[in-house]
Amino acid sequence: MSKPLPSPADHAREILARLGVTGLSADGGTAVRTPIDGSTLAHVAFDDAKAIEAKVAGAARAFRSWRCVPAPRRGELVRLLGEELRSAKADLSALVTLEAGKIASEGAGEVQEMIDICDFAVGLSRQLHGLTIASERPGHAMRETWHPLGPVAVISAFNFPVAVWAWNACLALVCGDPVIWKPSEKTPLTALATQALLDRALARFGDEAPAGLSCVVLGGRDAGERLARDPRIPLVSATGSTRMGKALAPVVAERFGRSILELGGNNAMIVTPSADLSLALRAIVFSAAGTAGQRCTSLRRLIVHESVVDKVADAVEAAFARLPAGDPRQDGVLLGPLVDRASYEAFVHALDQARADGAAVTGGERLNETEAPEAFYVRPALARLPAPTAGMARETFAPILYVVPYAEFDDAVAMQNDVPQGLSSCVMTNDVREAEGFLGPWGSDCGIANVNIGPSGAEIGGAFGGEKETGGGRESGSDAWKQYMRRQTATVNYSGALPLAQGVRFDL
Amino acid sequence: MSKPLPSPADHAREILARLGVTGLSADGGTAVRTPIDGSTLAHVAFDDAKAIEAKVAGAARAFRSWRCVPAPRRGELVRLLGEELRSAKADLSALVTLEAGKIASEGAGEVQEMIDICDFAVGLSRQLHGLTIASERPGHAMRETWHPLGPVAVISAFNFPVAVWAWNACLALVCGDPVIWKPSEKTPLTALATQALLDRALARFGDEAPAGLSCVVLGGRDAGERLARDPRIPLVSATGSTRMGKALAPVVAERFGRSILELGGNNAMIVTPSADLSLALRAIVFSAAGTAGQRCTSLRRLIVHESVVDKVADAVEAAFARLPAGDPRQDGVLLGPLVDRASYEAFVHALDQARADGAAVTGGERLNETEAPEAFYVRPALARLPAPTAGMARETFAPILYVVPYAEFDDAVAMQNDVPQGLSSCVMTNDVREAEGFLGPWGSDCGIANVNIGPSGAEIGGAFGGEKETGGGRESGSDAWKQYMRRQTATVNYSGALPLAQGVRFDL
Amino acid sequence: MSKPLPSPADHAREILARLGVTGLSADGGTAVRTPIDGSTLAHVAFDDAKAIEAKVAGAARAFRSWRCVPAPRRGELVRLLGEELRSAKADLSALVTLEAGKIASEGAGEVQEMIDICDFAVGLSRQLHGLTIASERPGHAMRETWHPLGPVAVISAFNFPVAVWAWNACLALVCGDPVIWKPSEKTPLTALATQALLDRALARFGDEAPAGLSCVVLGGRDAGERLARDPRIPLVSATGSTRMGKALAPVVAERFGRSILELGGNNAMIVTPSADLSLALRAIVFSAAGTAGQRCTSLRRLIVHESVVDKVADAVEAAFARLPAGDPRQDGVLLGPLVDRASYEAFVHALDQARADGAAVTGGERLNETEAPEAFYVRPALARLPAPTAGMARETFAPILYVVPYAEFDDAVAMQNDVPQGLSSCVMTNDVREAEGFLGPWGSDCGIANVNIGPSGAEIGGAFGGEKETGGGRESGSDAWKQYMRRQTATVNYSGALPLAQGVRFDL
Amino acid sequence: MSKPLPSPADHAREILARLGVTGLSADGGTAVRTPIDGSTLAHVAFDDAKAIEAKVAGAARAFRSWRCVPAPRRGELVRLLGEELRSAKADLSALVTLEAGKIASEGAGEVQEMIDICDFAVGLSRQLHGLTIASERPGHAMRETWHPLGPVAVISAFNFPVAVWAWNACLALVCGDPVIWKPSEKTPLTALATQALLDRALARFGDEAPAGLSCVVLGGRDAGERLARDPRIPLVSATGSTRMGKALAPVVAERFGRSILELGGNNAMIVTPSADLSLALRAIVFSAAGTAGQRCTSLRRLIVHESVVDKVADAVEAAFARLPAGDPRQDGVLLGPLVDRASYEAFVHALDQARADGAAVTGGERLNETEAPEAFYVRPALARLPAPTAGMARETFAPILYVVPYAEFDDAVAMQNDVPQGLSSCVMTNDVREAEGFLGPWGSDCGIANVNIGPSGAEIGGAFGGEKETGGGRESGSDAWKQYMRRQTATVNYSGALPLAQGVRFDL
Repeated sequence: MSKPLPSPADHAREILARLGVTGLSADGGTAVRTPIDGSTLAHVAFDDAKAIEAKVAGAARAFRSWRCVPAPRRGELVRLLGEELRSAKADLSALVTLEAGKIASEGAGEVQEMIDICDFAVGLSRQLHGLTIASERPGHAMRETWHPLGPVAVISAFNFPVAVWAWNACLALVCGDPVIWKPSEKTPLTALATQALLDRALARFGDEAPAGLSCVVLGGRDAGERLARDPRIPLVSATGSTRMGKALAPVVAERFGRSILELGGNNAMIVTPSADLSLALRAIVFSAAGTAGQRCTSLRRLIVHESVVDKVADAVEAAFARLPAGDPRQDGVLLGPLVDRASYEAFVHALDQARADGAAVTGGERLNETEAPEAFYVRPALARLPAPTAGMARETFAPILYVVPYAEFDDAVAMQNDVPQGLSSCVMTNDVREAEGFLGPWGSDCGIANVNIGPSGAEIGGAFGGEKETGGGRESGSDAWKQYMRRQTATVNYSGALPLAQGVRFDL
Repeated sequence: MSKPLPSPADHAREILARLGVTGLSADGGTAVRTPIDGSTLAHVAFDDAKAIEAKVAGAARAFRSWRCVPAPRRGELVRLLGEELRSAKADLSALVTLEAGKIASEGAGEVQEMIDICDFAVGLSRQLHGLTIASERPGHAMRETWHPLGPVAVISAFNFPVAVWAWNACLALVCGDPVIWKPSEKTPLTALATQALLDRALARFGDEAPAGLSCVVLGGRDAGERLARDPRIPLVSATGSTRMGKALAPVVAERFGRSILELGGNNAMIVTPSADLSLALRAIVFSAAGTAGQRCTSLRRLIVHESVVDKVADAVEAAFARLPAGDPRQDGVLLGPLVDRASYEAFVHALDQARADGAAVTGGERLNETEAPEAFYVRPALARLPAPTAGMARETFAPILYVVPYAEFDDAVAMQNDVPQGLSSCVMTNDVREAEGFLGPWGSDCGIANVNIGPSGAEIGGAFGGEKETGGGRESGSDAWKQYMRRQTATVNYSGALPLAQGVRFDL
Repeated sequence: MSKPLPSPADHAREILARLGVTGLSADGGTAVRTPIDGSTLAHVAFDDAKAIEAKVAGAARAFRSWRCVPAPRRGELVRLLGEELRSAKADLSALVTLEAGKIASEGAGEVQEMIDICDFAVGLSRQLHGLTIASERPGHAMRETWHPLGPVAVISAFNFPVAVWAWNACLALVCGDPVIWKPSEKTPLTALATQALLDRALARFGDEAPAGLSCVVLGGRDAGERLARDPRIPLVSATGSTRMGKALAPVVAERFGRSILELGGNNAMIVTPSADLSLALRAIVFSAAGTAGQRCTSLRRLIVHESVVDKVADAVEAAFARLPAGDPRQDGVLLGPLVDRASYEAFVHALDQARADGAAVTGGERLNETEAPEAFYVRPALARLPAPTAGMARETFAPILYVVPYAEFDDAVAMQNDVPQGLSSCVMTNDVREAEGFLGPWGSDCGIANVNIGPSGAEIGGAFGGEKETGGGRESGSDAWKQYMRRQTATVNYSGALPLAQGVRFDL
Repeated sequence: MSKPLPSPADHAREILARLGVTGLSADGGTAVRTPIDGSTLAHVAFDDAKAIEAKVAGAARAFRSWRCVPAPRRGELVRLLGEELRSAKADLSALVTLEAGKIASEGAGEVQEMIDICDFAVGLSRQLHGLTIASERPGHAMRETWHPLGPVAVISAFNFPVAVWAWNACLALVCGDPVIWKPSEKTPLTALATQALLDRALARFGDEAPAGLSCVVLGGRDAGERLARDPRIPLVSATGSTRMGKALAPVVAERFGRSILELGGNNAMIVTPSADLSLALRAIVFSAAGTAGQRCTSLRRLIVHESVVDKVADAVEAAFARLPAGDPRQDGVLLGPLVDRASYEAFVHALDQARADGAAVTGGERLNETEAPEAFYVRPALARLPAPTAGMARETFAPILYVVPYAEFDDAVAMQNDVPQGLSSCVMTNDVREAEGFLGPWGSDCGIANVNIGPSGAEIGGAFGGEKETGGGRESGSDAWKQYMRRQTATVNYSGALPLAQGVRFDL
């Protein structure tokens, strides 16, 4: 760490002031720590039951007027938010780095993603298209219209502390829905900062936006469950672990709410003999070690043709070994810290398990322990195995990459699919039949499937999400917006007669 | 009942033989009774756990080959099914009448709906459109493709014993999914008959259709729960009571399966002063008394402007009083039986409650008790109330129509929305502002909203289903087919370079 | 005209300087006159054949690189244009007023429309969706993709001197197409000003945008014809008279180019007995007299039920009589000048014809002739007729409103349709059957059909354009963007086998 | 020719009788000759001006009622047509073989395509979807609806004598449009036979279908021009030569009609080093020699990497040499006759030109001249050239395949694009970058682009047609149906207020 940087706390204080963040509490609240060195950035007060009730009630009230504001006008609010995010991009992304530990370029990329979804949602505000439908009855007109749904709860995780909110909130706002955000308890500051930027946009937007249109609920699991149970919230969009999703989904389902679940990934890459290995190497290292392996789309499993597996594994090992690690604010650093001690312990445990399963493991050392004893920097680990193990079917949210060889392409696809998760997947190949086969009905079973790209780094224009234990939700592009609205099928009879569908007769 | 008709049992036996239905058991099995006179039509054997396991396993196996059959070819199977249904329309609709008690015209309408969805699904087999999407990266192509999902469980109710299966099965088959059908325990015969017709189509279709592509599971609640829990079944489509849905939804959600729920309706009509009252009367009587009030879209609540409420109520009362009741096979009969004694008891109970709540009730008498002591024919009941009651918020699956007056249109809409269910709704008006307001974002909160048509009798081209306790599912037309497929977002890099989305830099 | 305003020439000079407009010529070029008082605003040089050739060649060159820029990145250029338009809104709209004579509010509305289409096009840049299509052959993937088309010529008219360009250019740029703009010879300054704003956006956008991406061709009919004939321009979008379209369309068609034609309208309103007459009056006056009757969507024919025709006509007459006329820059003025003497003469001629046909005409006087002898302000004219005449079937681009009575609604619709043009139409009614009938297959035959709104003032989210002699083109919203792209249907065989479509056998 | 077949005239007579074809004239009319041996199959009477006028007037009348029949009901007519085609498939395809000279399998494939489009159109009859659109004004509802357009003229060519009509007619009928069919003067019998089958469907359909809904106009170029000029025909869909299109398009454009043009193709295949050469060979021979090179999608230009060009050319030469030629009704025959002497002469002329340009030509001999002196069977010709020539840019409707080598893939794509036509194209490659590049924005400029399939043999689910001199039309799948309807953008104001779009103020 060559260049002198301000202390994380000073750095955060300065940004929070510039963004006009309020709601920070004196020392009596919950401490927010930075993964950079484990120091405290600020203190916040968690919401108690009464506070949450007030916020939900406020959102329900806001809904009654927000749904009446025309959608293109609602889009204008999101456009203003986009302007605020553009202005404050440097600050907000630096705060992401401080609170979540991402390197600067990834922090900036995350805010860029917020900006992109704003632009997308503004366009969408005139394209919330339903259908006109030809009726089988003369003098009848059918149509399907999409109407605002109601308050949406967004429960987000530490690793994308602001982008995931933006994916949900920009669509929700344009669709006519208030937003209640419960961020990870590890990243409340970026949430408060984002809300402050939205407040600026709201102030410019004017009176049409009701009080309570957007709020942040700070708290832990308990707060999330409260939202999940609340019948006034027709949609809960939750990002996090499969375990969290398994608990939350039935609670929402029982009250006939909708869920968008973005849960665990356990993402694989297949490298075939025809692949451009230099391209593959770059894709592997970015997707396995980027964000210190803490993306839901991080690469965790590498399935390489036996003819090139050693070559690929050696190259990855070498690249892992020379990745610059350290304070993620520092120029040139590509490898930041794990989020906390629990994460580090899971990493160590998974490596022990891999070794016990016969893996040859390289990397995995703890780094910078002396300089930062309360921070957890690790060298990404490569675990070479002769065949898939049970351990590989579990997701560890840390930079461990398992490598296994394959002989036949169909077997490689079967290995890729043979885990409970179904988020992202990819194949590196120059062969048309392999590429298209991977994307075909008997290919990858994931929600995301790439060719000659790693599993991470989706664009906002496509629907984002996965199958199986990943939870089945889709966010962002395509027609993901439909989940934030209610569909109404209408038939208008302007004929003067009353014919029945399917030719049924019922004459009085 | 003037014309001599065969006994229900003889009538059923004849039809079942003609359709080649197998799987009926000797007297040892479960008796299937007709609501026409309570007599036994046949006996069937319920599936035990082992039998269900074998059927699910067979469907899972069938999926692996059926998903590889091109969709337009899968459509050809559904086209052949449509041909078989056209040929056997008279028989199958008569069997619906025998087993479910519907009048002949409604039985025919139900089979027509099966035929319509076949035609629709055949067209759809070349239109399972995903998207191509412009990527933000040069030399990259994005696309969203819809792939087959896996075996689909269809749990259907007695009142649409075959059409609901067709809505689901025709889409599922075209989408590449095997179908496992658990019909109501009250209507197994029509299910077996439908499967026999599909078997004929399968025989003509040839080898590409695998064994196990479609099966019928006979049983009660237990069998349904078994299917709901099975992780090999990614989609459960269930029609029935809200209580059933409340139990089933969390079970499916916990294993990250998808549900399509079509649960209770509690459907209202608003009659405004500008309405064509003659049209309104016909719409009311058909939708309140048709199928003896046992449609999920039956009209249950009538909200009439105070200036015409008495006139409308008097006319409905008179029409109810003269509705021809009796054996639903009989020409001219418009009013068949309730499905069973429990249904009758619920009817009686609800009327008692209404009276206790201050309603003036007319109708509601039991009919034909002497001729058919084990059948339950009732005169539709009209319950006039000065204002909505708690009892009106509960759905009774029988011909009870509550009438309340309103003064302001907005109040009428609020009354319409003020129940936990959200299936179907309608307004009778000639006023543009009322009509469009009812269909707008602050109008009806139901999945179906009609103008100058009753709440029942949807066409297959629109999406069918409702919000709130109705369960949120959508079947049949529009893009309901997407629920039967899995969505895949793919990006293909053909550029030779590896730019990252959102401009992120990660240079080794 | 109470408030002292700068002279039009000074006013224009100031704005042009502020916007950095270059390309104005010394006195030697063509004079640009303001309809406000007929004075000269500036001089411009028309392009000769050689200059046009260079610009088309430049656009063709620009296409080869612009099509390779990813669409979302192309959207960023349009987003920057939107920012420039927002900044310069006051200036550009004032220039519209000076050059085209529109009142200030309409000038601002026109620039707002440019801004709206920018926002829309930015969203569209990630939604240029083609389709993935299920193939009938195993191991085959079909898809439809939309690719950039090539340089687009935009030929625009004086009355929407900038918005029509924006409708076309924003879509074209996002779709990957360079734009060649030939504005009306009456309004070159607003075109140069708009190009200057785009140049600012281009400078901020950077190197990816090639030289020649957008240019302005100044000239008359001859210049337009040159563009129409040029095989390097696959799409010509032309707004203007039916006569112009009739000449241009075959020229483009013969070389297999595409045309988007937005030609004459002759728009009618039907007023029924149930209409809100106060609403109707406001709609009539704005759409008949706004922009001094010089919108393609201006109201020209009023078809009123005989029971209210006198009342409506009297009210319109009174409103026309008191409309504040004068310098359109002036606060409170609602009625600006006709564009030039030819326009005034056509107005006079049409009124003479109407009188000869038996019309009772009120209004139609020339105003302010003394103060502004070279400007042409007129009082809107109302021509009452007992039945439609041949003269009513011709469009006069000036504020003449013909009124005829009707007895039966179907006759009113027939009158509405019985002209050669088919742009916009409307009905004022509160009757559902009339409203929906007007919008149904046997109702209005126009591209635009409104209920309880006048014929003018479309939103950018819908497709804009009309049928019959209006030319059939559609611009702006819905899927109008597809015209700016070429469609490609692709099938990829990844099966290793070569099955033929439709089961054809051809075995060597 | 080993197996004894009936004489073509006897064979045709038998089929025409079985299909109930009427309208054949005695010897006084125009003789219809078979390309099989040049003998006369039957005589027909061409329509004179008066007869055509009556048919167009009848279609215009039919439109007024057909547009009121609900679309799903219109679909039922097309479903019945599909049933008739299935029943008569053998007869109609044999007649195609007799009249157009196609081999039996291709005749059957053509009728299968008719059947496929019937199924597709039936599904479409409930999916003629417009849009509902969110308005920017409160209390306003926008929508886009597609309405019936009017009579459609279909001008078809000899080489697909019935399928092209079906592509157009099935969509047109479902869309609410009557159809006027002018088949090629070379193939009137298949047209009359198809009309006879439609008449059977109409008889079963019943009274809702008006007289004049479908008619056949027999005649030559003159008859086609008459239809092109007729203002009662809003859409002319014409298949044929570029020369024909160039004459017809301006005539339709001048009256503001729409054209769908399917004109010349000059289709190429690129064979890259990674291609599966055995697959390529089969694709080449079928697409170059199938239908004796008389498909608009026939392969005419082969662009082969220099490393394999000799190998590929030698293999094609050998395959051409052994293709079984003769009476196309005969089992095993793959090569039928050219359609007539003019076609043969063009073939000879193009080969002379190729030789003059330096081509090494093999094949091209006339076959069976002795047995069938009035028929024109030829051996497909292969013309090897070192580089593209001007002659290769012209389409000769006969089996000539030009072969040129390439060194760089980009050059191959440039050669592929460097002709005035733009119908179909393909690349044989196993390289992902080449395959996707070919399908990308800087790849093939054709309407159809395939990978590892020849250029011919499209499926009906995609849009069919091409760019540049191919005419730009699209038929069959995707949203081609929109051309057969008129689009209406409607806004309904139900608010009681009258806000203007873009915030314009105009207060009286």
